Amino acid sequence: MEFFNVMSVDEVKNILINNFKNIKIETEKVTILDCYERVLSKDIASQINVPDFNRSTVDGYAIKSNDSHGCSDCMPTFLEVTGEVNMGQAVDIDIKNGQCIYVPTGGMLPKSADSVIMIEYVEKLDESTIAIHKPISTGENVVYKGDDIKENQVVLKKGKKINSQDIGVLASLGAYEIEVYKSIKFTVISTGDEIIDLDENLEFGKIRDINGYAICSLIKKLGGSVVKKSIVKDNYELLKEEVSNGIKNSDIVLLSGGSSVGTRDYTHDVINSFDGQGVLVHGVALKPGKPTIIGECENKAVIGLPGHPVSAIIVFKIFIEYLVNQILDIKETTYTVDAIINTNLHSSPGKKTYQMVSLEEIANKYYAKPMFGKSSMITLLSKSCGYIIIDEDCEGLYKEQEIKVHLL
Amino acid sequence: MEFFNVMSVDEVKNILINNFKNIKIETEKVTILDCYERVLSKDIASQINVPDFNRSTVDGYAIKSNDSHGCSDCMPTFLEVTGEVNMGQAVDIDIKNGQCIYVPTGGMLPKSADSVIMIEYVEKLDESTIAIHKPISTGENVVYKGDDIKENQVVLKKGKKINSQDIGVLASLGAYEIEVYKSIKFTVISTGDEIIDLDENLEFGKIRDINGYAICSLIKKLGGSVVKKSIVKDNYELLKEEVSNGIKNSDIVLLSGGSSVGTRDYTHDVINSFDGQGVLVHGVALKPGKPTIIGECENKAVIGLPGHPVSAIIVFKIFIEYLVNQILDIKETTYTVDAIINTNLHSSPGKKTYQMVSLEEIANKYYAKPMFGKSSMITLLSKSCGYIIIDEDCEGLYKEQEIKVHLL
Repeated sequence: MEFFNVMSVDEVKNILINNFKNIKIETEKVTILDCYERVLSKDIASQINVPDFNRSTVDGYAIKSNDSHGCSDCMPTFLEVTGEVNMGQAVDIDIKNGQCIYVPTGGMLPKSADSVIMIEYVEKLDESTIAIHKPISTGENVVYKGDDIKENQVVLKKGKKINSQDIGVLASLGAYEIEVYKSIKFTVISTGDEIIDLDENLEFGKIRDINGYAICSLIKKLGGSVVKKSIVKDNYELLKEEVSNGIKNSDIVLLSGGSSVGTRDYTHDVINSFDGQGVLVHGVALKPGKPTIIGECENKAVIGLPGHPVSAIIVFKIFIEYLVNQILDIKETTYTVDAIINTNLHSSPGKKTYQMVSLEEIANKYYAKPMFGKSSMITLLSKSCGYIIIDEDCEGLYKEQEIKVHLL
Repeated sequence: MEFFNVMSVDEVKNILINNFKNIKIETEKVTILDCYERVLSKDIASQINVPDFNRSTVDGYAIKSNDSHGCSDCMPTFLEVTGEVNMGQAVDIDIKNGQCIYVPTGGMLPKSADSVIMIEYVEKLDESTIAIHKPISTGENVVYKGDDIKENQVVLKKGKKINSQDIGVLASLGAYEIEVYKSIKFTVISTGDEIIDLDENLEFGKIRDINGYAICSLIKKLGGSVVKKSIVKDNYELLKEEVSNGIKNSDIVLLSGGSSVGTRDYTHDVINSFDGQGVLVHGVALKPGKPTIIGECENKAVIGLPGHPVSAIIVFKIFIEYLVNQILDIKETTYTVDAIINTNLHSSPGKKTYQMVSLEEIANKYYAKPMFGKSSMITLLSKSCGYIIIDEDCEGLYKEQEIKVHLL
């Protein structure tokens, strides 16, 4: 019998950084319509000012603001209307004190105007005269040239996962093609004599390939691509061949299943059979997720996830998401949800415990209910909305204690 | 001058439900590899038990648990090993009291066995005898037939947006093809003489089509599809033609821009020019987002979003996301993040105020910093991670007050 020499979660993360952070991922150009959730491979600096002219934010009259100073309801100021700005066109007229020009929302201000008075505060006396009743200050209702984005300003940084707001920023710069990282390529191998695919007959004693499909969707969610997904029986030669193809064709090879001693040994031996450092991690002080194997084969990461679905998904979220974020330099903040635990909860001292929970909102507060069950149960996961992390040195949580829930 | 007759956010939501909840969206079958984030169009019930046999969760020996009762380190129980279960195969042998069978993790239990003792607690004396030192109880280290999912049990409900855990559940049932709603089809029209596309020259006075691209990505995020995205000048006939095509080819037509009075009038008039109820909402008690127009044309929703990017995106999140969730019966809970506001904040009484904020974590607590700026500024959005909602009857928030942040 072999005992695991387990490592802490942080030790494992360091091993991932030290060995795989520099895996080289190529870049490609995509159009702005296809860049949603892709990761920028270089900083984006603006080549223009946005807006590149002084722009009115309201429908009104562009004036020199000092013309309005001192005016009131009973003491209006009268201004001469000397023209109108056409939407989307450059202004070729200017104003002097005592003059004004009509400007629609988004229209360009004449050079000497410094503010816009809304039509709501204007009385139109005749075609060429208005009365204004309200003093306004310099810059009122104006977005100045470069107010939003300045020329040469870096607006989005390398490693940014592009969201809808970022797409708005890119559009404002006129950026149609954007350089992003190519998807990280994964091979996903489910192992075990009992594992069958969805199109096979469910014979007695067999079980469907849950992990393979769940992991493929987690990869998709992360922005990765699955080069090949397969099921391999508990056989050293077959597993070695599949891992060998994985190493050739992808950046990261994920094995799952193999929770029986036999398969675990095969995974271990296969990883050690390639050029490279072989097995780097065999066992993590983590619950669930202890039987995790991490190896380096021909400069690629080969990672054996536990066989139980809950464990496999937790380990994916802890280590694979982390590794991908490191490789692509992704700086995403994920926010936790504050909640109150609705029961006393024991943990496993010495291991970092990840406890699945569901959340319920009562009187404006979230209450977390631990979802118990065996980690082979996939419904344990589908009923949970997230998990809480209990540190190695903590024996448990008290009912009503405040906790932070990490959403799945 | 025309004043808006504004409605509250809740009134507008009711109008959306009453008029558009029953827009018919067809369904289609997709494979499990393509169903991530699609929406189930009917309940999924299991046709099998998962697992469909009693399954060991450890490597060990399947026993009758009463054989272990009373044993201890100094008083072991001796059992005869009568066989071994092969992984993934049906067991054709059974045990009597005093006997046991080796079972790997995930292997099937013999009929009469009710528990599995882990190999860690077993001493192998010879090929056919083990000594056990620890009493175990019925069901220990076993997942019973149907423990995870029972035959006929509804495991996923209509309206569920499929996540990775759900894909695990679907795989466990052997569900390869899944019936989901087709994407809701959108037409996205940006209006305004000043709006130019990304491939046009940025002449003085013009501005890039920010909203069109940002909205397309919001639609993609929601799972919708964009049938056509276009830019239309401030011209009644051109706008009418584009909206007419949109009504024919899509489920929802979104206009944006048109924050100037002229365009606003065109949008209003075009909506009223089709068969149907015409304009239903013209102005919402919402900041930002007041100049929102909602109409019904030939049983389709035609919705004019405000021209300022921040307003357009907020209105999309409040009303379009809501409408899509209603049409597809999506029951997603979105969780808010508890935070403390780092400054006093005035709101606009009488309007529901959506204030963009950024979040910073200090000493295990989140602090929200309001992002101020004009709502025409797209960088205002890209610097924010979410927003807080201040109700109509509230004049503002005090520094250090606890608030809930809705993530973007």
